[in-house]
Amino acid sequence: MPENQRADARRNYARILAVAEQEVAAHGADASLERIARIAGVGSATVRRHFPSRRALLEAVFGERIEALCAGAAASAEAPDVRTALLDWLGALTEYAASARGMAEALAQDRLVDPEHVNVCSVKLGGAVEPLVRRAAEEGVVAPGVTPADLVALVTGIALATEHHPTPVAEARRLLDLTVEGVSPPR
Amino acid sequence: MPENQRADARRNYARILAVAEQEVAAHGADASLERIARIAGVGSATVRRHFPSRRALLEAVFGERIEALCAGAAASAEAPDVRTALLDWLGALTEYAASARGMAEALAQDRLVDPEHVNVCSVKLGGAVEPLVRRAAEEGVVAPGVTPADLVALVTGIALATEHHPTPVAEARRLLDLTVEGVSPPR
Repeated sequence: MPENQRADARRNYARILAVAEQEVAAHGADASLERIARIAGVGSATVRRHFPSRRALLEAVFGERIEALCAGAAASAEAPDVRTALLDWLGALTEYAASARGMAEALAQDRLVDPEHVNVCSVKLGGAVEPLVRRAAEEGVVAPGVTPADLVALVTGIALATEHHPTPVAEARRLLDLTVEGVSPPR
Repeated sequence: MPENQRADARRNYARILAVAEQEVAAHGADASLERIARIAGVGSATVRRHFPSRRALLEAVFGERIEALCAGAAASAEAPDVRTALLDWLGALTEYAASARGMAEALAQDRLVDPEHVNVCSVKLGGAVEPLVRRAAEEGVVAPGVTPADLVALVTGIALATEHHPTPVAEARRLLDLTVEGVSPPR
């Protein structure tokens, strides 16, 4: 394939993925592939060439978001205010999980057939935020014993529990705030 | 049906249900109906007469537990130590949700086809604990704005997020404690 065709293919891939991210955020895991092709200005066949199945497209979208969250966690590991950095990251994780409507279900269903795959995502996110959580623990701004896996599990649970709420992102943010500050902190 | 036959039927129903509760707690939603019949000392036909489907049996088991949780909430509405009473109730709700392995999944799947049914359970639990939460709010032992529905949603999420953990009940209890006391309470 000549260089200019390869460059075209890369641009198409990036454009389809960018549109897919927006559409999945807006319409959930059953976003229309035809609509994605139309907005990206490519044919359905081009979408299918890059993403042979809906699952492949969703995995690419979620993979991108997870990479971005991991990069964000790494970037904020040295932030001056560790608590703010950690809470910002948890907020971004929660918005991602709650906004990708259908993702939590897709993950929960995946988990039934392939616990490994979900585990890979959780372990990856937990690993990325580990330096930030360790610093937070050293500075005493998280409860004793809190692990990165705990934080990912709590956010996953909040996303699952709010998935059918009329305004899932706002509701998930509210429940995250309660979880961070404590539903009934000891006096 | 003569009175002594009716009394037999009631005893069988109660015995099957009691055994089913134990078996569901131990083995989750796919507990063996044949094993339940054997332990209860009745034939499979008797189990099927009282509970025509696995779903009917599970609904009876979960219904019993939910009734007991509602009764517990009502009974503790006047408890002298409102925070302890509320935390005990949340602990019982969490243990129920986490121990009934497969229930959270069954509920999540139900939710896809029949959001009403899950809603009925959540609304019932939320309604039952409402007087206790209101007293807790009046005494300032819960965070401002916490609603009974928030508490049920947080526990549901924890149960969903820990369902595939090797020790789901212990893990769910630990995440509940974090949620109650705060992952990162403000200083």
